Amino acid sequence: MSMNNLGFVKRNILRADKAAVQKLSRFGVATIHEAMGRVGLMKPYMRPIYTGAHVCGTAVTILLQPGDNWMMHVAAEQLQEGDVAVAACISDNEDGFFGDLLATSFRARGARGLIIDAGVRDVKDLTAMNFPVFSRAISAKGTIKATLGSVNIPVVCAGALVNPGDVVIADDDGVVVVPAAIAQQVADAAEAREANEASKRARFAAGELGLDMYSMRETLAKAGLKYID
Amino acid sequence: MSMNNLGFVKRNILRADKAAVQKLSRFGVATIHEAMGRVGLMKPYMRPIYTGAHVCGTAVTILLQPGDNWMMHVAAEQLQEGDVAVAACISDNEDGFFGDLLATSFRARGARGLIIDAGVRDVKDLTAMNFPVFSRAISAKGTIKATLGSVNIPVVCAGALVNPGDVVIADDDGVVVVPAAIAQQVADAAEAREANEASKRARFAAGELGLDMYSMRETLAKAGLKYID
Amino acid sequence: MSMNNLGFVKRNILRADKAAVQKLSRFGVATIHEAMGRVGLMKPYMRPIYTGAHVCGTAVTILLQPGDNWMMHVAAEQLQEGDVAVAACISDNEDGFFGDLLATSFRARGARGLIIDAGVRDVKDLTAMNFPVFSRAISAKGTIKATLGSVNIPVVCAGALVNPGDVVIADDDGVVVVPAAIAQQVADAAEAREANEASKRARFAAGELGLDMYSMRETLAKAGLKYID
Amino acid sequence: MSMNNLGFVKRNILRADKAAVQKLSRFGVATIHEAMGRVGLMKPYMRPIYTGAHVCGTAVTILLQPGDNWMMHVAAEQLQEGDVAVAACISDNEDGFFGDLLATSFRARGARGLIIDAGVRDVKDLTAMNFPVFSRAISAKGTIKATLGSVNIPVVCAGALVNPGDVVIADDDGVVVVPAAIAQQVADAAEAREANEASKRARFAAGELGLDMYSMRETLAKAGLKYID
Amino acid sequence: MSMNNLGFVKRNILRADKAAVQKLSRFGVATIHEAMGRVGLMKPYMRPIYTGAHVCGTAVTILLQPGDNWMMHVAAEQLQEGDVAVAACISDNEDGFFGDLLATSFRARGARGLIIDAGVRDVKDLTAMNFPVFSRAISAKGTIKATLGSVNIPVVCAGALVNPGDVVIADDDGVVVVPAAIAQQVADAAEAREANEASKRARFAAGELGLDMYSMRETLAKAGLKYID
Amino acid sequence: MSMNNLGFVKRNILRADKAAVQKLSRFGVATIHEAMGRVGLMKPYMRPIYTGAHVCGTAVTILLQPGDNWMMHVAAEQLQEGDVAVAACISDNEDGFFGDLLATSFRARGARGLIIDAGVRDVKDLTAMNFPVFSRAISAKGTIKATLGSVNIPVVCAGALVNPGDVVIADDDGVVVVPAAIAQQVADAAEAREANEASKRARFAAGELGLDMYSMRETLAKAGLKYID
Repeated sequence: MSMNNLGFVKRNILRADKAAVQKLSRFGVATIHEAMGRVGLMKPYMRPIYTGAHVCGTAVTILLQPGDNWMMHVAAEQLQEGDVAVAACISDNEDGFFGDLLATSFRARGARGLIIDAGVRDVKDLTAMNFPVFSRAISAKGTIKATLGSVNIPVVCAGALVNPGDVVIADDDGVVVVPAAIAQQVADAAEAREANEASKRARFAAGELGLDMYSMRETLAKAGLKYID
Repeated sequence: MSMNNLGFVKRNILRADKAAVQKLSRFGVATIHEAMGRVGLMKPYMRPIYTGAHVCGTAVTILLQPGDNWMMHVAAEQLQEGDVAVAACISDNEDGFFGDLLATSFRARGARGLIIDAGVRDVKDLTAMNFPVFSRAISAKGTIKATLGSVNIPVVCAGALVNPGDVVIADDDGVVVVPAAIAQQVADAAEAREANEASKRARFAAGELGLDMYSMRETLAKAGLKYID
Repeated sequence: MSMNNLGFVKRNILRADKAAVQKLSRFGVATIHEAMGRVGLMKPYMRPIYTGAHVCGTAVTILLQPGDNWMMHVAAEQLQEGDVAVAACISDNEDGFFGDLLATSFRARGARGLIIDAGVRDVKDLTAMNFPVFSRAISAKGTIKATLGSVNIPVVCAGALVNPGDVVIADDDGVVVVPAAIAQQVADAAEAREANEASKRARFAAGELGLDMYSMRETLAKAGLKYID
Repeated sequence: MSMNNLGFVKRNILRADKAAVQKLSRFGVATIHEAMGRVGLMKPYMRPIYTGAHVCGTAVTILLQPGDNWMMHVAAEQLQEGDVAVAACISDNEDGFFGDLLATSFRARGARGLIIDAGVRDVKDLTAMNFPVFSRAISAKGTIKATLGSVNIPVVCAGALVNPGDVVIADDDGVVVVPAAIAQQVADAAEAREANEASKRARFAAGELGLDMYSMRETLAKAGLKYID
Repeated sequence: MSMNNLGFVKRNILRADKAAVQKLSRFGVATIHEAMGRVGLMKPYMRPIYTGAHVCGTAVTILLQPGDNWMMHVAAEQLQEGDVAVAACISDNEDGFFGDLLATSFRARGARGLIIDAGVRDVKDLTAMNFPVFSRAISAKGTIKATLGSVNIPVVCAGALVNPGDVVIADDDGVVVVPAAIAQQVADAAEAREANEASKRARFAAGELGLDMYSMRETLAKAGLKYID
Repeated sequence: MSMNNLGFVKRNILRADKAAVQKLSRFGVATIHEAMGRVGLMKPYMRPIYTGAHVCGTAVTILLQPGDNWMMHVAAEQLQEGDVAVAACISDNEDGFFGDLLATSFRARGARGLIIDAGVRDVKDLTAMNFPVFSRAISAKGTIKATLGSVNIPVVCAGALVNPGDVVIADDDGVVVVPAAIAQQVADAAEAREANEASKRARFAAGELGLDMYSMRETLAKAGLKYID
């Protein structure tokens, strides 16, 4: 085992099963993270650069140095159809590591979007391109190309561990990471959960209370809830 | 007096006068808070989940435990036509306590919207439903149902004291709380203020300066303001 | 030299050359700040109050006291066609110093927009007016008129030094300040940069990699980058 | 009822029972807030200006305007032996509202300390005086005396509702507010709790596990906890 | 592979070699993280609860639910001589999950300290016990015991991935994680680095410049640095 | 005028008068900033790395790139007896740009301390050296030496404009910048202010109220303050 995880590009990564990724793309982030048992979410400071942005794909991971986007160019070559670039930074930095030129390059390689725990710029162009980006900040600040990071190593991005090949799904509610090995299982659980929600929605709309639908009254009383007038 | 304010649901609360609430709904948050003497605002971190969200109604208050939305279901039963749910949390937490299912339930009970000093999710659906929500965060993170809070006790929500039955108004500028007892008085003052603003707007548009409109030149000179070339 | 920079209004300021300002207005903030060598940006917490806001003009600077917008009215008189008001506050404060009445006044004087390191309100009206504002916060909280600041002195706004007459450009990516003396030079450099970007965009779209376009492979190898399978 | 709660000084307030205050002073903030059922705490951003600061007394409340400490002088006159000044600000502001001169004045009036949801200065002198202050910030920034706030009205300070006369206790762990009406009850509950803790401490020190002391093993198993090797 | 990583306690973990841990304990966090190539640090918001706190040991990891410290008691049983408890929370929460009773229990089990990406309390007692704790917050707010997390699974704590058995070192500069497999290698590199620093310190003290010691003048000139008078 | 302010080292700067600096060193930051009319302060997030740190000297300014401390070494050569290094960063970054080796070098050159709007490390050693540092963060994270900044150009540091040669004073209350041209004038004003404070302190200690000492009662009544019982 090497002591250092900087300066490496892993070329062959095991991507999650395409059918599972496809199925996961039908569900929202909230549903998927519930289907996994309420784990796998990035921090809520990760926000879409435009309302309605949505992306689902397999992660090509990038570890950046602060103020330096050299590895974004290295990562471009590793991107394939259906990938999502997932970029973490070695220390907190909100500079604009990514703009419309890199988005054009990433898209040409087949990438579906970018998740970055740092800043991006050219948001007007990115929006016009309909290129989904989820970031911690928007900043016009440019970056240099001087120091090595890595591509396709495990990274911690916005508080979540992402392994290359994992499925990453992002929408208006946030970003969730599904380990490649359980992608199909999670997709199935999400499907079951969503089916279940549809019937609940109808009952709620008809005026039924969660207190009754979930049989909470007895548990609440046992916990000591008191009604006063 | 009980030592503890957790584990209670107050069923009968005195709601602000309906006519006063109706009148207050015509004014913006900035105008209403000025009409009260620049008090009653929640912290500016409270933001609408979609541009243009607006709500005005009588508060049903909810005190939540971190990561636990049990009391949201208890509160649903207490909601009436014209109410706004106002949820505070016993310690800072940005999990997603509320989504489209609860919104469906709240709306079926007559609620007009939600003010919550915590996180919400399913914002795409909530937006499609046109259900106004003002929150401190958006987060896909789900919650449990395990610990008692309370419903319809006085709460501090985003820095503002809210008593059940108070009027709560929220728009793009923020959230303001009007005590039920002075709702009519504040509505009248807001109306007077707004009438006054219309004429000022015309004068400003015509090029008149605030310096002259408000007769500030003398006071400024007395305060020592110096013009240099 | 006076010990104190409060209580002054400078009437005659040297504004950047109109042709240079006009030329700068054609470029985005990211391009302009790159053209200056990656300097001159305000902090990324400065955000437009509506998507797509854009402004370019000569700075009339304002130094505010916390919770006090008196100097905004003093500044209105100093605004000319093509100016942008740039307001800093003597200590951090997110109150709403500016709303639709002042916007009406500023516009009547010829101002094109406002950059303010504090809060604003009436954002619905400001949006309807299409009056571009970039601020650190939105807050309904009103202000008083009691204490002197200054107008048209050098200010530090959101981390950037702004001298009266400098060119200020703001768009979805942030806010950049171009010293008046180098406005033309920066505009020319921005133009050159943008021309250069168009050709790169086409090459990226065609699948060419930044690694090749910028001849990075050798440098990366020298820096020690290793590819593993 | 007046529409406005600014511009008032309430002279006669009902202070909590002296014996109860005295008894509460023996317990830590964590113990007291547990004794109340985990409520009554201010936000954890309130920190002592020196390690080991501790204060317990009856609240004289102050509502400040941003950047303006006029009401601190008004409040000084209302302070009595055993009081703690509790200052909130009408909008977030970290200026230095309080220093060694005011501390000298407050102490001369009998005050035991200050809790302020804003900034203070002269911390070296305040530390030398051993005058306990809990604040959200330290800032040298001075304030003006221009706008009315109030003294001895209910205030929300750092997220907690404080009524004049309530008991306020602060130590290295934070700040807790005990309503005057339940001060004795809470003091008794805190005493019981602390007695209980002493015996537990000894058992923990002897190596007994909380799992056994609190009989958690069965509940954990029921909840589904699995041990794997 | 299970879909869910909640509700598990791993009893047998592979701890880093004791000699390597012992050697690492001689070096500071800054030195160790440099020896690893500038990786492995937790976010700088992790601070010691008292000046001079220092700890080095093998990680027993804990995944907590917000506002719930049940797993701390479960973890106590897994602690051995030389361990450091490392607690992450499933969503951001600053409640006080840990105090002097748990510290007494942990110490009785052989634990050397606690790293927790959440809040702690009883800091006066913990300081008196000389029990090193590094946390993101201090808060008196108590927690409940209702929901399962896990013990000894990989966790992301304050932005760093921690596997059970890894070496964790913390001092006034922050917290660093050394994977168990490279503990000896890192300890050796840290030793080499420190030896090297001693000689540099003497040269700096004698007035030698880094410009000369590191032969930077030529590189700076090449990079374009200009000296002006 | 050059378009770019990066890549320059100004060797000859005009330092503030030594006698004025010496006199300023006798006063606290709060007093000096008041003597200047409440301007010149850095943001209150700048904190000393140890309690009681105090420094006063002439500024040698440094503009850093994020994650890169190359210019610290360049600056070392420009430091003279009585200087204080003042470092700003081109974008927000909390890495540890400075530790005990650089402190040894700076001290050997005559520097009295460091003000840095970024992070530092080796705080235990710096404290032992009694080398005063005021920073926005403490972080073990090391930096690289790859990109040019500048030395002795005007910088914005933590919200304050600092010109090379200005006097910088820092203590437990914060950091203040006194322009070189008015150093003597400010020192005299600070002296007058402090003399005035001594007599006030005695009167406050004797129980006199600020209300009477500053003759506030009439102004307060005019402003509308009402006493109620």
